[in-house]
Amino acid sequence: MIEQDPATSELQALQRQFDAMPPVAAMRIATDGFREGMLHLHAPLPANVNDKDNAFGGSLASLMTLAGWGWLTVQLRLAGHAADVYVADSQLRYLAPVYETLAARAGPEAGDDWPGFLATFRQRGKARITMQAQVRLGSGAVAATFLGRFVAKAKG
Amino acid sequence: MIEQDPATSELQALQRQFDAMPPVAAMRIATDGFREGMLHLHAPLPANVNDKDNAFGGSLASLMTLAGWGWLTVQLRLAGHAADVYVADSQLRYLAPVYETLAARAGPEAGDDWPGFLATFRQRGKARITMQAQVRLGSGAVAATFLGRFVAKAKG
Repeated sequence: MIEQDPATSELQALQRQFDAMPPVAAMRIATDGFREGMLHLHAPLPANVNDKDNAFGGSLASLMTLAGWGWLTVQLRLAGHAADVYVADSQLRYLAPVYETLAARAGPEAGDDWPGFLATFRQRGKARITMQAQVRLGSGAVAATFLGRFVAKAKG
Repeated sequence: MIEQDPATSELQALQRQFDAMPPVAAMRIATDGFREGMLHLHAPLPANVNDKDNAFGGSLASLMTLAGWGWLTVQLRLAGHAADVYVADSQLRYLAPVYETLAARAGPEAGDDWPGFLATFRQRGKARITMQAQVRLGSGAVAATFLGRFVAKAKG
C-alpha cells in the first residue's frame, strides 16, 4: 500500500469543503497543489464570466479569498490543529481583465511570521495573520491582487 | 396602458444582466429597488452558505461589488448614457456573520460628486467614482462594508 503525502490528503479534504459550499461549487473552484509555499486554485471561465465575457470581479475576489483561507486551513491541519478560519478584511485591486481560466495563488504576506502565528495560536487558541494572493494570467501578468487579514480560532 | 417608471424598467434590465452572468445567477442575486438614493440587492442564504452555516465571504464581496456596479450602471442609463462599468479596486471589512438573507445597499461615497462625475463622463467618455456599500442584518447591524472605485467608459 502506498502512503499518501499528508499535504495531498489535506488538499483533498479542502476540495471536499469547497464542493460542500454551494457558491464555491457553482464557481467550480478546484485546488491545484502547493508550489513554492503558495496554495494554487483555479476555476473555469464559463462558470465565472461577466457581461463583458471576462471573469466576474466577485469570482476573482472569491478565488483569492479562498486561496488565502485554504492555505491557512491546510497548514493549520498539517500542524495538528483543528481551527475555524475567518476573513476579517481585504483589499483588492483589479488590474487586467481575465479571458481565460482563473488561476490564483496565495501565501502569508512577505515577512509575515508563520512560526509566531502558530505559537500565538497554541497559547491563546486564536491568532491573526495577513495573507496575500494574486490572480495571474498564463502570460505571467498579474490580473488582480488581494491582501487580507484572517483570524483562526481553535475548534471546540 | 400604464406607463412604467423608467427606474423600474432599468432595474428589470439590471436583473436580466445579473441572470445572464452564471456566477451571479448561481448566487440568486436579486434587485430590490432604489430607496434613499441607494440600490438594494438581496440573495438567499442557502445559495451562499459557507462551511460554518453562514454567508460565504466571497458572496458578500460579490453582492456589495454588484450593488455598487448596479447603482452606476442604472444611473448612467437613466442619465441617457450607454457605458461599460468596471470595478478598479475595493476594500472590504467583515464585521459579523450573516445567518439570514444577504441584503446589501450601495450608493456613491458620502460627499462624492455625481454631477461632476457625469460632466467628466460627457466630456471625456470616461470617469471614475468611489462607491460605498454595506450588508445589513434585519436587526439593523452592519455585517460587512465595501468601499470601491469604479470606472465607466462610454460604449462604442
